Amino acid sequence: MSDFDYDLFVIGGGSGGVRAARIAATHGAKVGIAEEFRYGGTCVIRGCVPKKLFVYASKFSEEFEDAEGFGWTVGERHFSWQKLVAAKDQEITRLEGIYRRNLERTNVEAHDSRAVLEGPNTVRLLATGQTISAKYILIAVGASPNVDEGLVGGQHVITSNEAFNLADLPQSIVVVGGGYIAVEFAGIFNGLGVDTTLMYRGDEILRGFDMDMRTAVRDEMQKKGIRVVLGDTFTEVEKNADGSLSAKTKRGDTLKADQIMFAIGRRPHTIELGLEKAGVEMDGIGAIKVSADSQTSVPSIYAVGDVTNRANLTPVAIREGHAFADTIFGNKPWTVDHSLIATAVFSQPELGTVGLSQEDALKVTGNLDIYKSSFRPMKHTLSGRDEKMLMKLIVDADTDKVLGVHIMGPDAGELAQVLGITVSMDATKADFDRTIAVHPTAAEELVTMREPSERIRN
Amino acid sequence: MSDFDYDLFVIGGGSGGVRAARIAATHGAKVGIAEEFRYGGTCVIRGCVPKKLFVYASKFSEEFEDAEGFGWTVGERHFSWQKLVAAKDQEITRLEGIYRRNLERTNVEAHDSRAVLEGPNTVRLLATGQTISAKYILIAVGASPNVDEGLVGGQHVITSNEAFNLADLPQSIVVVGGGYIAVEFAGIFNGLGVDTTLMYRGDEILRGFDMDMRTAVRDEMQKKGIRVVLGDTFTEVEKNADGSLSAKTKRGDTLKADQIMFAIGRRPHTIELGLEKAGVEMDGIGAIKVSADSQTSVPSIYAVGDVTNRANLTPVAIREGHAFADTIFGNKPWTVDHSLIATAVFSQPELGTVGLSQEDALKVTGNLDIYKSSFRPMKHTLSGRDEKMLMKLIVDADTDKVLGVHIMGPDAGELAQVLGITVSMDATKADFDRTIAVHPTAAEELVTMREPSERIRN
Repeated sequence: MSDFDYDLFVIGGGSGGVRAARIAATHGAKVGIAEEFRYGGTCVIRGCVPKKLFVYASKFSEEFEDAEGFGWTVGERHFSWQKLVAAKDQEITRLEGIYRRNLERTNVEAHDSRAVLEGPNTVRLLATGQTISAKYILIAVGASPNVDEGLVGGQHVITSNEAFNLADLPQSIVVVGGGYIAVEFAGIFNGLGVDTTLMYRGDEILRGFDMDMRTAVRDEMQKKGIRVVLGDTFTEVEKNADGSLSAKTKRGDTLKADQIMFAIGRRPHTIELGLEKAGVEMDGIGAIKVSADSQTSVPSIYAVGDVTNRANLTPVAIREGHAFADTIFGNKPWTVDHSLIATAVFSQPELGTVGLSQEDALKVTGNLDIYKSSFRPMKHTLSGRDEKMLMKLIVDADTDKVLGVHIMGPDAGELAQVLGITVSMDATKADFDRTIAVHPTAAEELVTMREPSERIRN
Repeated sequence: MSDFDYDLFVIGGGSGGVRAARIAATHGAKVGIAEEFRYGGTCVIRGCVPKKLFVYASKFSEEFEDAEGFGWTVGERHFSWQKLVAAKDQEITRLEGIYRRNLERTNVEAHDSRAVLEGPNTVRLLATGQTISAKYILIAVGASPNVDEGLVGGQHVITSNEAFNLADLPQSIVVVGGGYIAVEFAGIFNGLGVDTTLMYRGDEILRGFDMDMRTAVRDEMQKKGIRVVLGDTFTEVEKNADGSLSAKTKRGDTLKADQIMFAIGRRPHTIELGLEKAGVEMDGIGAIKVSADSQTSVPSIYAVGDVTNRANLTPVAIREGHAFADTIFGNKPWTVDHSLIATAVFSQPELGTVGLSQEDALKVTGNLDIYKSSFRPMKHTLSGRDEKMLMKLIVDADTDKVLGVHIMGPDAGELAQVLGITVSMDATKADFDRTIAVHPTAAEELVTMREPSERIRN
């Protein structure tokens, strides 16, 4: 029997923390976990899950329109934001229940409290004041939305946290930011009938993605009616007498909207966590520094997920948590390979990507063959919708290896998942070419691109 | 200059014939082609393309229902079959135009006539009586729906050919058959509001596919309201005074319906083609016997596509035609590998498959690990629709190689396309496991199945 209250105490009941707790318990460890808000974490409570449900909701408006090209006449339709929020809340409550039951089932003791570090083997639960000792501590507290400290009237703007639970659907909104959260919410609000503006200080949305895809997504978003303002941001927000907001931009414009949502990145949720007290080192933005096996500068303290700011994605946090638990408690040491992670942006149209962008590939080799195919998805030959699908393969011209695959269009995220397997197996363009098409699908374009659209040599 | 009118004459303007003609012409051959009906062939004119457009049309009815769970109220909707057929016709006319223009662009001379063989190097155009000589002849005449010769009153039933152009949408239909065409049309009619029965003489629909998937697709079809009658078929059909049909089954039941559609397989379209005259050998069902490089028993005559009854799929015909043209006219000999072909059935829910079924895998090895995951697609957590998605991996327990992947659910065909690349690269289960999930997608189930649902040992 250990001298500690627990073999492992996990701070944070999100995807990474819960996975680590369950796996450690399965390996025989005595495990406690503390969560200050709701079990399930960002992903389940105010991230991926409710976001995707909202995306589904927002896409119906186009379905109603598209149906007409196929012979349907659709009567008047109305959307109730309150009904959607209630349905979403019911579903995340159900999911939270599953998380809690899974913890119970593996005999993990769940505490509903904020927990802070007191030392290398000690945490304190703020709800009760109780001090708990543990042989190992895992920090999995995630991240939270950035706020613009310099924004005058910043109290009037919301983040994604609030966007999930607005009392009313605004008639107009400005979403500030160019990352995937900003882009996804702009699509959601636009699809639900809100007059939507996306404002980003940079030159193009979706920094880090392949430039062709960034431009293509913006083009399609604009076609759908989203106003995109680049190279500008707000400096000052004022609340009007009617409850609406007026905001001044750096360039000197004034915009009026019912809501302004800032989605300008997220930061590790490390404030007042006692990290300094315990001696846990952080980097310049407050992320916990960890080794490849998620160990912090304090040997008994580990950290996984967004708080470490490696690849801030739910499945990565889950894997980091799993690897930690297997390594420390299961005598099965392994580490997570962060080098090749397929991802999806649930923009409208959707973006799916695996491997390198053309820009990043050029840093690796000067000899690339670029294959691009832009086409109208079959459904839209009859719906008449002016929407393109874009697929792009980045191929190393010397080795024939597929370095990156990028897709914009329906089901791009689903395709990216399977392409993640393919590309991680070092697929060559010849492997794609050899594969017989499945007809009629959109994905068959991936295996029928014969001639490079561009040959880059030096 | 050749002593023949053409270097190559192609009989049949479908996918395989047109591809062969164009590629041969690109390699410098003088090429003629004859088509008796419409350029584009089965796929474009009365197969894959209009079928998938109809599938899109039929799925809107569920979209309207599903929207309610997301906060939408949708007014009364009406469907016009005539509008759908007109829109479909416009689209296939556009596609036919593309086929014709692509032939013109490569200087292939297109004849609008039925053509028959007169000898190893001679064809006759029935429209003009003209006799044409060619160094090589390619037969690419495809296949046509089987009819039940023994059916009394067979003149009253339709096949898929007629189903695409019915003057009116029937109120009720019985689709006879259990293959993909029967299953797809049953889904189409049901989605469009037709009272639909699927009748198949066998024990389970979709013979040749994995049994779990066959059962699952039938279950879901039945949930959607399709009446499935197995182990029976019609023996006699009678037209009633009101234009409806009454039909007697082998078992002794009588069914009444506005239309009865037979989809009981297809046969090579070789009747009265002059094959015997030219000395081209056929098999027992009238398919042209060919070598791996598509050569018939007559050295100057080749055949590709459904008429050879190898893998009766558009992309396969295209590839066979391409390989033939490259080999004979381009000095680039290659053959089509028919061993691993991913396919999709546009049933509702969709079915996507690559590699071996569990039943076929057991003929190869006695040691299998079966991974199965059945779950409710995320969209239906809010729509409330009682529909499951099913994924199944067949893994060789000795080598860890993934022998088959089977998916029933949204976008299964799209996933099958990419899985076709993956499985053809000899992917192992470890390759799947190593891949990080893309969340939230359905496809992430493919990479997160940890424990076999069944371990089969010799």
